Amino acid sequence: MATKLTNESEIDGESATAAVVGASGFAGGELLRLLSGHPGFEIAAATSRSRAGRSVGAVHPNLRGTGLRFSDPVDLDPVDVLFAATPHGVTTDHIDEFREGADLVVDLSADFRLDTPETYDEWYDGHDRPELVGEAVYALPELHREELPGADLIAGGGCNATAAIVGLYPLAEAGFLDGARVVVDVKVGSSEGGAGGGVASSHPERSGVVRPYAPTGHRHEAEILQEIDAEFDLSFTAHAVDMVRGASATCHVFPADGGPVEARDCWRAYREAYDEEPFVRLQAGGRGVYRYPEPKAVAGTNIAEVGFETDGDRLVVFSAIDNVGKGSAGQAVHAANVALGYPETAGLDFPGLHPVGAP
Amino acid sequence: MATKLTNESEIDGESATAAVVGASGFAGGELLRLLSGHPGFEIAAATSRSRAGRSVGAVHPNLRGTGLRFSDPVDLDPVDVLFAATPHGVTTDHIDEFREGADLVVDLSADFRLDTPETYDEWYDGHDRPELVGEAVYALPELHREELPGADLIAGGGCNATAAIVGLYPLAEAGFLDGARVVVDVKVGSSEGGAGGGVASSHPERSGVVRPYAPTGHRHEAEILQEIDAEFDLSFTAHAVDMVRGASATCHVFPADGGPVEARDCWRAYREAYDEEPFVRLQAGGRGVYRYPEPKAVAGTNIAEVGFETDGDRLVVFSAIDNVGKGSAGQAVHAANVALGYPETAGLDFPGLHPVGAP
Amino acid sequence: MATKLTNESEIDGESATAAVVGASGFAGGELLRLLSGHPGFEIAAATSRSRAGRSVGAVHPNLRGTGLRFSDPVDLDPVDVLFAATPHGVTTDHIDEFREGADLVVDLSADFRLDTPETYDEWYDGHDRPELVGEAVYALPELHREELPGADLIAGGGCNATAAIVGLYPLAEAGFLDGARVVVDVKVGSSEGGAGGGVASSHPERSGVVRPYAPTGHRHEAEILQEIDAEFDLSFTAHAVDMVRGASATCHVFPADGGPVEARDCWRAYREAYDEEPFVRLQAGGRGVYRYPEPKAVAGTNIAEVGFETDGDRLVVFSAIDNVGKGSAGQAVHAANVALGYPETAGLDFPGLHPVGAP
Amino acid sequence: MATKLTNESEIDGESATAAVVGASGFAGGELLRLLSGHPGFEIAAATSRSRAGRSVGAVHPNLRGTGLRFSDPVDLDPVDVLFAATPHGVTTDHIDEFREGADLVVDLSADFRLDTPETYDEWYDGHDRPELVGEAVYALPELHREELPGADLIAGGGCNATAAIVGLYPLAEAGFLDGARVVVDVKVGSSEGGAGGGVASSHPERSGVVRPYAPTGHRHEAEILQEIDAEFDLSFTAHAVDMVRGASATCHVFPADGGPVEARDCWRAYREAYDEEPFVRLQAGGRGVYRYPEPKAVAGTNIAEVGFETDGDRLVVFSAIDNVGKGSAGQAVHAANVALGYPETAGLDFPGLHPVGAP
Repeated sequence: MATKLTNESEIDGESATAAVVGASGFAGGELLRLLSGHPGFEIAAATSRSRAGRSVGAVHPNLRGTGLRFSDPVDLDPVDVLFAATPHGVTTDHIDEFREGADLVVDLSADFRLDTPETYDEWYDGHDRPELVGEAVYALPELHREELPGADLIAGGGCNATAAIVGLYPLAEAGFLDGARVVVDVKVGSSEGGAGGGVASSHPERSGVVRPYAPTGHRHEAEILQEIDAEFDLSFTAHAVDMVRGASATCHVFPADGGPVEARDCWRAYREAYDEEPFVRLQAGGRGVYRYPEPKAVAGTNIAEVGFETDGDRLVVFSAIDNVGKGSAGQAVHAANVALGYPETAGLDFPGLHPVGAP
Repeated sequence: MATKLTNESEIDGESATAAVVGASGFAGGELLRLLSGHPGFEIAAATSRSRAGRSVGAVHPNLRGTGLRFSDPVDLDPVDVLFAATPHGVTTDHIDEFREGADLVVDLSADFRLDTPETYDEWYDGHDRPELVGEAVYALPELHREELPGADLIAGGGCNATAAIVGLYPLAEAGFLDGARVVVDVKVGSSEGGAGGGVASSHPERSGVVRPYAPTGHRHEAEILQEIDAEFDLSFTAHAVDMVRGASATCHVFPADGGPVEARDCWRAYREAYDEEPFVRLQAGGRGVYRYPEPKAVAGTNIAEVGFETDGDRLVVFSAIDNVGKGSAGQAVHAANVALGYPETAGLDFPGLHPVGAP
Repeated sequence: MATKLTNESEIDGESATAAVVGASGFAGGELLRLLSGHPGFEIAAATSRSRAGRSVGAVHPNLRGTGLRFSDPVDLDPVDVLFAATPHGVTTDHIDEFREGADLVVDLSADFRLDTPETYDEWYDGHDRPELVGEAVYALPELHREELPGADLIAGGGCNATAAIVGLYPLAEAGFLDGARVVVDVKVGSSEGGAGGGVASSHPERSGVVRPYAPTGHRHEAEILQEIDAEFDLSFTAHAVDMVRGASATCHVFPADGGPVEARDCWRAYREAYDEEPFVRLQAGGRGVYRYPEPKAVAGTNIAEVGFETDGDRLVVFSAIDNVGKGSAGQAVHAANVALGYPETAGLDFPGLHPVGAP
Repeated sequence: MATKLTNESEIDGESATAAVVGASGFAGGELLRLLSGHPGFEIAAATSRSRAGRSVGAVHPNLRGTGLRFSDPVDLDPVDVLFAATPHGVTTDHIDEFREGADLVVDLSADFRLDTPETYDEWYDGHDRPELVGEAVYALPELHREELPGADLIAGGGCNATAAIVGLYPLAEAGFLDGARVVVDVKVGSSEGGAGGGVASSHPERSGVVRPYAPTGHRHEAEILQEIDAEFDLSFTAHAVDMVRGASATCHVFPADGGPVEARDCWRAYREAYDEEPFVRLQAGGRGVYRYPEPKAVAGTNIAEVGFETDGDRLVVFSAIDNVGKGSAGQAVHAANVALGYPETAGLDFPGLHPVGAP
């Protein structure tokens, strides 16, 4: 009666070797968790400059059972796949070594997400290796499944951008976004700020907030505009709320024709886009407590919940992901699975918890 | 150096007697807290049908020191001011008794908030006393200061509506909203659901959520449209987030002329509207952790924080209130102060806490 | 380098069929999650009287992908293993049917946990089937590994009892508890109260609490006294704290001889008891943020973290579990694995999340 | 019907001038909040070395309305009362200046809490001004009301110590503690760690914890032993839990005579000690949600809730305070009120909030 998501028997032969560079951060730790339970990977290295030699479990308590230790990135041996979970800029600095030492580099930073040097000029103060910009495949298999197999450089999407993109993509495919006005209002958890301290992210100041932290000009706008194939007017605002994991995007969409927007047309667009997708779950309405997408329902998973409601000339689209999962490490492993020809769900079969508080 | 908000010496003569009907609910408890520390009121009755005879402190632990007991509403003696904190519909059923037994009735429900029977037909399945609709003054002194003195029926605003109205009102006054598109994205705490249980509001299910609970068609839209004096296109969506007290509204405003919106014009509009207001605090930008309006910075108070940022053809307005305070009981006491000629800040001088978690 | 916890190839032949009775509760949902990812079980039924016919995913959003539906318990067909996650008393009422319809019954309630009818008289107002009391094996494999294979009735331990037992058991084995005084101070999450509502467990009242809810006389004392093989003086107090999943026990142990307690003796006792245990992790001291047992480090898992510190004549023992996992459904699946001869870790390899908020 | 706690008319003549040194910390901010609403104080200075010249409201958002600015401590002019809310050690370094510049110094650090240099040697690596040790009056008026009037140096108690002391004091007075064994198990909020960052107190790591942070050897033990006038065996363990404000102590008391402990004897002891106390509330049993002491019921106040239950030879005592209030700044203002002859409740009449989440 129950469906088993992973069919591990499909992974034949030897596991691929994997290195996680920047393994002491949150995305790095999540990569280690996913890869250590993945039938197609063997973790060869988990690097951290500051913690080389120490136990991984001392930083990521859920990995105490793995016996993993951090190694120094300078000691990195060649691997099949190198996952870079380093701060923005590091991958650019080391891209040549990374590519030399691995058949596939999956970068979780913003370093190679955008397609043109001009976009980096506009949103990120330029790029130090402009000649390489455009070589990476954006990681989301829902949009780039065809380009991933055989790729040697994959760029993971930003978490807020991912939340918005999975919500908007079917509408663009169905032509609803051309000329539309789209307001994206994002709510995101504290893990987005990364491991480390700082007063604003200290528990007394960060608990219980609904805090606008990027009212305008968030860099993830660039990705949304790049990945959504339509000409539309995008406004984006992000708020920090009281959870650790999770990103929720509410997209208020006003199509160009002034509506009304018909629910059945939307359903068709979303079903067409996602009916075959293993990691997108349409969720709109119905009974019970969990009627719309909610980040806590997908915490720890690579699942995106997407739902919507029509409102005259407006369509309200909700999407929810785990920013560390589908918004970062989960997306990266999913893309690597596609790139390597593994079953897409390999290593990603944790379904989440219920009940769960504020994961 | 420090300003004392309350000048109690201005209240001469005897205190007014006050009754709180529906005192076992959250708004009722907050009214009791505010009135018990108010120099111009003496609490004559705190009614609760289900808890008559029991100690108020057994329900509201912060009021254990007051010695108050719930009484039966049928035993209500005449008072100067009757505050009704009952579920929607109750005040309509009892409005004649209430008005007979009090010089001033301040109702916190939706029963008399809207101006016309037609609006009740559209948003609330009609009204049982249509001939009385329109007699009440909407409680917000920022909009109705002139009409409150001498009023005998005051209708408190809805919490989400209040959050939106304080953010949008100055723009309407300055003419920015005519023909504009306005998207109001609200985040609200669990106290809005009221005292009592239910699975959706149980701690395991309600903790850590970002839950769309009113994607479209929220009744507070009617109030916003009524109170904001402009012709604009309103879209409204509310989300439950993990706090108990607080409502935060992010209003994405697109003026009709296509912008750009100039920050200095906005500043002028907000300063003009609020510079003299004792309970509105402009908060936009600057340094530090608390740069924009945040509900936790105003928890327990009657203060609304309002701020904004410009973004090309968009203006993003943030407002934050305590839904039980400014969004309900605080607003009611403020309006009563104005109605009775008391100093506006009497009984409302608690400035909030820092640090504070998820109040 | 990383250890794979599950060796699925060891499960040969056909999967066992499993029914979960009482599947709409929290423990029932967790059983479904664990069994749906378990290589040795096929879920044949998930019963719920009140929700028969409805989708399991409507109640447990993490199980939307399974396609499971609740069935009526009256329609239950014979299965290999029946897991009962029903309220206390239900299994006693149905024990004959349950045993007739399944080779193995695993009951998660308190119905068969205690060994003698007298204990039920003392702590639970008696037992309706006293002749069956004593037939069940207490589920914790750490204490009952030898008795589980071939058992036909297994009784899962209480969550608070489990937390205390895993902390105290090695001390009893080493003889430290005879004549000792032991104070057990427990902190537990809101999921212990079960699915459903009620004012005390509503989000506004239950958030942020440190609430003594069982100052004395908690029924889990009976289990601790039964399972810990020593004569000692037990005091037990439980507090509700702000998390959904998790139970943390701090056991203050004062040995009879007046100490001092030596750390190396304790280490020896704990290592002897747990060095081979797949689901107990010794965690005491060291560097970093997570130096002692913490419930959030084991949320979603079947792992118990145990640690201690010596303090003159006192030994402070900390233990942390997920009350829904090791404290309930995880323990049940672990015991069933041992009973059926499956690898102990089968279906229980989720290592938990980092970071994670208040799971 | 309602009792007004503050009788402001009793403060005649001019306000005292007050300086808060170390005003950018949490206790400093709370002092400013309390003093700015206090009828007997005028805030003359709020010093902060690092933030001199900046607005107080930029750090403490609840004080935006006060217009206060931080000044440099070197510019401090003489005042009537100097409150020092500085890190441990600073007051010792500056005690001569402080006493020269103020008639009364109220220190919130541990610098002068203990009575003998030997105790500082044992618990704090000694004291730099041993000749002054013993000159201060410990701030708790419940224990030192007679010594406070006219004092020129007052030392505020530690928050965890205060929680334990208010719970144990009546038992010592009644002679129940001589020869007793007492286990104090404390749960405390994140504000205890102070303003500032650090990984352990970052929101992702600190949220949702039940984290033993001082299993043994907590320095507050020294205070408890000093203030509780009895010979008893004290064991103390502190846990961090998920709230910002609040400390809850569960004291497991085993009297020397082996009991049983009689509830009516305990009631007599507690009533005798606290019946006249304006800031201690006995709370034990009864109906409703809030039957025992809870920190969230006293958040923002100077109130200590104390309750107990008997259990054979054990007495379980619960006490709950706001660690920033009664456990620090509130206690300091209360003591200053007594020292200056002000009404004890002046400036301390905020009764707390209901509902409230995790303050």
